[in-house]
Amino acid sequence: MISEKMKGFVANSSIIRAMFEEGKKMAEKYGTDRVYDFSLGNPNVPAPDEVREAIVDIVTNTDPVRVHGYMNNSGFEDVRETIARHLNELYGTSYGAGNILMTVGAAGGLNVIFKTLLNPGDEVVTVSPYFGEYRSYAGNFDAVLVESAADPKTFYPDIADLEAKITEKTRVLILNSPNNPTGVVYPKAVLEEIALVLERKSGRYGAPIYLVSDEPYREIAFDGVEVPWIPSIYKNTIVGSSYSKTLSLPGERIGYLVIPSCLDDFENVTAAANVANRILGFVNAPSLMQLVAARCCGAKTDVAYYDRNRKLLYDGLTSCGYECVKPEGAFYLWVKSPEEDETAFAARCKNEEQILVVPGRSFGCAGYVRIAYCVSYETILNALPGFKKVAESYR
Amino acid sequence: MISEKMKGFVANSSIIRAMFEEGKKMAEKYGTDRVYDFSLGNPNVPAPDEVREAIVDIVTNTDPVRVHGYMNNSGFEDVRETIARHLNELYGTSYGAGNILMTVGAAGGLNVIFKTLLNPGDEVVTVSPYFGEYRSYAGNFDAVLVESAADPKTFYPDIADLEAKITEKTRVLILNSPNNPTGVVYPKAVLEEIALVLERKSGRYGAPIYLVSDEPYREIAFDGVEVPWIPSIYKNTIVGSSYSKTLSLPGERIGYLVIPSCLDDFENVTAAANVANRILGFVNAPSLMQLVAARCCGAKTDVAYYDRNRKLLYDGLTSCGYECVKPEGAFYLWVKSPEEDETAFAARCKNEEQILVVPGRSFGCAGYVRIAYCVSYETILNALPGFKKVAESYR
Repeated sequence: MISEKMKGFVANSSIIRAMFEEGKKMAEKYGTDRVYDFSLGNPNVPAPDEVREAIVDIVTNTDPVRVHGYMNNSGFEDVRETIARHLNELYGTSYGAGNILMTVGAAGGLNVIFKTLLNPGDEVVTVSPYFGEYRSYAGNFDAVLVESAADPKTFYPDIADLEAKITEKTRVLILNSPNNPTGVVYPKAVLEEIALVLERKSGRYGAPIYLVSDEPYREIAFDGVEVPWIPSIYKNTIVGSSYSKTLSLPGERIGYLVIPSCLDDFENVTAAANVANRILGFVNAPSLMQLVAARCCGAKTDVAYYDRNRKLLYDGLTSCGYECVKPEGAFYLWVKSPEEDETAFAARCKNEEQILVVPGRSFGCAGYVRIAYCVSYETILNALPGFKKVAESYR
Repeated sequence: MISEKMKGFVANSSIIRAMFEEGKKMAEKYGTDRVYDFSLGNPNVPAPDEVREAIVDIVTNTDPVRVHGYMNNSGFEDVRETIARHLNELYGTSYGAGNILMTVGAAGGLNVIFKTLLNPGDEVVTVSPYFGEYRSYAGNFDAVLVESAADPKTFYPDIADLEAKITEKTRVLILNSPNNPTGVVYPKAVLEEIALVLERKSGRYGAPIYLVSDEPYREIAFDGVEVPWIPSIYKNTIVGSSYSKTLSLPGERIGYLVIPSCLDDFENVTAAANVANRILGFVNAPSLMQLVAARCCGAKTDVAYYDRNRKLLYDGLTSCGYECVKPEGAFYLWVKSPEEDETAFAARCKNEEQILVVPGRSFGCAGYVRIAYCVSYETILNALPGFKKVAESYR
């Protein structure tokens, strides 16, 4: 009795989520410390203390009618102003409240901007491997996701291939850097080349191609690598951000869109995005968490924690022979499968060592697996012997 | 550059929301105490103390990785179990966690169930006047909203008309009792008649017609009136509920769906609803507020506060000649316009007396206005002389 479209969505449902559920069942069976669940990007780092302090202070000292009440569908004016100012300090921009739309996480924000921009049959180009939900989000609006394979050496976008994939049907290019699942950060020079392609194509087809920059991992970068602010490189950029990872609040569903004033058709896009936020059923981003985000927008998650995990995992896996993409950001390691069929490798990890990793085909790129290292240091330490045994079993 | 569908949505955008924004601007101009804003269902009653106490206790004494983390897309298992038990105590049902899906407010829940059930071209029948967003929610999935006019005497559903409007294209009947905007509560006998119609029609067309019962106002009912539990009357009922009004948490976006096990195709519907919650971008209902809802699901908003407002407003308006539908639930008064064109009446209220009321055509029923009395007692008291002057101006 369910809708035809949902039948497809259910059939292709997130393998990551299925593994998350399976991991919990396995933990009940084998014990939590005997299951090594690297499946989901659910931070093991607690939210910074500022979050708890802000919550207690706000609910104790602010009128509950304001704290928990409705506001403009785009969010509290003062919250949006504060976030705009914070971005201005970081990136030398001049945003105001009107450039910020508070959203139900980055996932909510992407759906809002896709609903705003996409007609049925429009194409959304992305670089594979990519966060698998992009396909569902485009499908929600009957648009088509088009994959452009990354350069297999660097996992940066392949400019020539990208250019070939962008046609007159392309409405949006969605990029994600620091990248899930590869952990790479796109350098400025690469982004500048992409901007040139988009400008040329927009001119040729007589309509702007919007770049949607999905940036939940912006603040998680290592070794001093620069994460360029893309709206300063390409004017028709909309940024989707979230506090899920940077403040370890993934369950709270709090994020925002940045829609710069220089965007083509800015007035209509912001007005429509405000309406889309409402009619998609979000109505507004959760109110208390909006206030918390404004208080804590300068707070940082414990990047050193992830860095320590990254080094342990990367060194541990490469030393027993795995081929890994050097991760510069986010909290994922992208590992070449020792056999062509990475689902068989992932099954071997699970069945023989209770290690859960996600097959690359969930991200549109077979032959690799994704390991989410936002777990405890001990989980990695205790899983390494298992990874080693599996590696040896392939010799 | 925005999508064709969004152009339509923006053009027909919520007049209620526009009035809410205008009310804030008028308050800046005339002073808050000189503007009487009855436009939005934004409770002026603060959340019960239990909510603040639960928030402080949870963030102080529970691991933040759990409080703010991901969980199953349907919500925390123990939260769903607690809410199920609470419903069982109230309605003598036997629900478990598997019958509850935590949602981003009732609006999120309605979108989840519509995405789950509706194919393009399917019809969703509702009784007018109705909450205007239903049209957008059906439109999100290319379904068509079909209006069946309520009996103009009682504002209960007109059974004969409803029967005529339900065709083989009808997939869902959505009802809302206690009703926004009329404040009426549908009696059990009326609901039983509707159930018979739905059973007959489901049988004739060989497919179940689901009843979606939108119940954010369930706990706000007066004079001891019974609000029947509809799944006990018609088995293919899905309930959409919310803590927005009952705990005064509209900005927090926390609600739930009840999907009874006896529902036709229960397994597929719940699996698809879980996926829909994820891919629509909600991912899950806000995590802290899920925990708060479970702690406070027995807490009650201050119904006596609304009752006092209701009496003051109803008596005040009827005594100066307005014709009002007797409100038994929710916090809305449905008032016949003194002139045929209720938008002219609403404009006169606004321009001459700074009183904001919503024209009935926003609810698919011209000739009436909606007055949301979830405001302070003083706002009503101070607005009554203005209402009286406007009434006199029509003599």
